[in-house]
Formats: sequence, structure tokens, C-alpha cells
Amino acid sequence: MKVLVIYAHPEASSLNGALRDHALQHLRKAGHEVQLSDLYAMNWKATLDAADFPERDPSQPFHASLDSKLAYANGSQSADIAAEQAKLEWADTVIFQFPLWWFSVPAILKGWFDRVYAYGFAYGVGEHSDHHWGDRYGEGKFAGKRAMLLVTTGGWASHYSARGINGPIDDILFPIQHGLLFYPGFSVLEPMVVYRTSKVDEARYGELCNELEVRLDTLQSAPVIPYRRQNHGDYAIPALELKDHIKGGEGGFAIHLAD
Amino acid sequence: MKVLVIYAHPEASSLNGALRDHALQHLRKAGHEVQLSDLYAMNWKATLDAADFPERDPSQPFHASLDSKLAYANGSQSADIAAEQAKLEWADTVIFQFPLWWFSVPAILKGWFDRVYAYGFAYGVGEHSDHHWGDRYGEGKFAGKRAMLLVTTGGWASHYSARGINGPIDDILFPIQHGLLFYPGFSVLEPMVVYRTSKVDEARYGELCNELEVRLDTLQSAPVIPYRRQNHGDYAIPALELKDHIKGGEGGFAIHLAD
Repeated sequence: MKVLVIYAHPEASSLNGALRDHALQHLRKAGHEVQLSDLYAMNWKATLDAADFPERDPSQPFHASLDSKLAYANGSQSADIAAEQAKLEWADTVIFQFPLWWFSVPAILKGWFDRVYAYGFAYGVGEHSDHHWGDRYGEGKFAGKRAMLLVTTGGWASHYSARGINGPIDDILFPIQHGLLFYPGFSVLEPMVVYRTSKVDEARYGELCNELEVRLDTLQSAPVIPYRRQNHGDYAIPALELKDHIKGGEGGFAIHLAD
Repeated sequence: MKVLVIYAHPEASSLNGALRDHALQHLRKAGHEVQLSDLYAMNWKATLDAADFPERDPSQPFHASLDSKLAYANGSQSADIAAEQAKLEWADTVIFQFPLWWFSVPAILKGWFDRVYAYGFAYGVGEHSDHHWGDRYGEGKFAGKRAMLLVTTGGWASHYSARGINGPIDDILFPIQHGLLFYPGFSVLEPMVVYRTSKVDEARYGELCNELEVRLDTLQSAPVIPYRRQNHGDYAIPALELKDHIKGGEGGFAIHLAD
């Protein structure tokens, strides 16, 4: 495999740092090629702004998506953005590792998506017609690649259970797994979620390493989350609502999973 | 009212900029006090890191929450963080205005939450016992204050409907409205969501201004989203799962709304 690890934690001497090092070592030992984007260590610029498009016409109002489209098309994006896009093109498998901060990714990782996911690269791809609404949600630049989240949280598993007060972890991660990974074409593996990080002692850390190794060894073989593909008959176009005969009367994130 | 507007859009000459200016003008004309945090104009630092805590011991590993706790307690946080906290203390009403980027807030706004929401300020507040799990989800520093999202998106309303492919807008916003606003005690108003921004012509813009004025005029009177309070009997503590006799057998975000 060619594995890209996108890593967003501020401290190397941490549980996240240890799990990352364990993963890199395990993957390399198994003969895989690995690239790491350590966003904090890279001092990754989190904020998408006009400076990302150095050749844009400064007399015109900045328009995030149109400026992105132009710069991606004519190869004039900021170099740090283009370098991350090249890593994504290279990889067949991408792991996103981060602590869950306020029920989402840390800002530095959100900014990686905001900036690297250019118009023409991760969205705005493909034909828009009455039977095809862009190459997205199951199609797109990353079709054929796999992605997995590796997430840590201080909260308890029960707080993120089906009836837990934070909401079910699958629903909290839906905007990321469905909206950021499946959207541009990734096949999305089940996430590995580590709860109650402050209680991880040596014994628990050993268990987590074992679990991580199993997940890494099955990145290419494990079943993926069966999100429904947009342009293959389940959705009305252009309304993009699930057709009435599928899970009629139901709503919510879960209806976008095939049975 | 004392209204704080947290605004995260990179371009003043935009639909968001126009709506913001309209809102500020309308609120001031009605005699309210208004403060604005224009995150792009302020060049807000998005990334939470050790530099946010200038008096920390650099020989120790950085720990986001413990360093935040110490610095908040001894008044040694970075000045930009303390200034935003003071605005939140001052306000009785907070409006968060942003374009929906990748089904969440822009990185610069995520970084505002990551950094301003300190330990002891927005989390880690209050007693933890077998009947009270911190002052959160309905209690906390912001109890008695109201908050509302003002969100724009290029997508169609149907794409965000109950059966829309992106998922229902209420579910997409749940980690923000419930996890970032209700959590530290805000009463949360229904969001104002503007769809298909690229199709907003003069007539539609007039409608949006009218809708916005109504929302601003009813900030203190409109009903709030009836999220369940954590420490008032609906949840088992410390598992924090909804008790069996309430919506038994159901799961998902919606069970956290009272009937």
C-alpha cells in the first residue's frame, strides 16, 4: 500500500503521538510506503484566504470557490496546497488521526480540508445534468482509494452511544466520513475510536496497539461503510432526496446507508 | 440587548458581508449595543497550540486541556483569547455568522471555539458527582444567554432536507448547536439558513433582509430549541445515557429534544 497519514495533534509526547509512531512503524515493517503530514509540525496554515491564490486579481472581490477553481485549473495555487494534493494523488489509503475537539476535527485539520479540497479537485468535478449531479458521493478524484479515521476523545463510550448525551459517534462523524471522505470518492472504513484517553494505562495502551495493528493489517480488506452512491438511482436528481420507495417515511443520516 | 456577532467570512463584498452589515445596522438602529468579532479582519489565529499559554513550563509536554485550565485559572492566557472571553461575558445574545464549508464552520471559526472555549470557562466547570456531571448541557458559564447561527450554503434546501443527500440541516448543525452552544449553557435559537447563495438576486436579497430583521427583532422572545438538560433527571449519571423510560428504543440526535 501507499499510505498517507494526516495527523493533527500538537504534542508528540502524547497518546496520539505514540499511536501515530506505532502505526508508522507497523506499516513500514510490513513493507508499505508511508507519507506523513504532521500538520502541527509543518506549521500548516489553517485559514483559507486570498493569499492561497497568489496570482489572483487583487482588484476583484475574493470568492473562495471561484478563486480556488481558477487557481487549481491554471496551477497557481499556493505550494503547500499543491503538495498535499500530490500526496493524496499518490496514496491509495489515507488515515486521518486527530483528537475530537468539540465534536469535530481541530481547526488545523479543518483548515487542511478547507484549503486542500480545491474546486476541480475535491468538488465541482464532473458533469451536472438531470441524471448526474457531479462526480461526488461515491465518485470523484479519490474513487478507488480508502480512508479511515483514527480518533481519540476524553469522553466515555457511553456518552457517544446510541442514547448518549453527545449523540452517537457515527452521527457525530457523519459530516466528516460522508461529507469529507465519501463525497470526493473515498471508500470509508469504520473509524477506530479511542475513548477516555486520560484513563489509558500501560495495559490499555497495549490493547490499543493490538487493535490498531489489526486495523492497519486489514485496511485493504475490511468492509467499508455502505453509503449510497448519488448517481446510481437511489436519489432523485437534482433534488438529491432519497427516492420514496427506499426507506419511505424515514429521515436522518442513517437512510444514506444501504442495507 | 448586548449582542455579540462572531463573523467568519473572508470577503466583505459578499452576500455574507452585506447580511452582516444589514444586521449590525438594524440592531444599532433599534438601540441595542453591538460588538463584532470579524475573525478574518482580526487575522484571528486559528490553531490552538502551546503559544496560547505564554507562561507555561516549556520543559513539560503540552497538554491542550490542562494547559488551558492552568492559564485560565491564573489569568495567563494569550490576550486575544481573554479579549474574546470578555466579549462573551459582556453579551446577552451571540450570533455566529459563517458560510457552511464542508458541512461545518470554516477553520478560522473552529479555531475560535478551540481557543476561546477554555477549560474552566466553557468546559470543566462545576461539580462532578453521581447526580451532577459538570455544569454543561443546559448549565454553565453562558446560562441565561441566547445564541443563534446565521449560515449560508451554496447547496439547495432539498439537499439538506430530512431525506436529502447531505443529511438534514438540523443534524449537520447538531454538533455545533448542541455541542458548542448548549453545552456551555446557551439557549439556542433556531438557525437562519440561506441556501443556494449563488442564486440570490436583488429580490431574494430583499426577502432575506426581511427574514433577518424578524429574526433580530425576536432574539429575546422566540422559542429556543428544547434540548434536554443533563443534570435534571433525564440522563443516567455518569453513563449520560437517556433513561429507558424516555423514548425507549430510540437513538440518534433527535432524542435529545424534549417533546
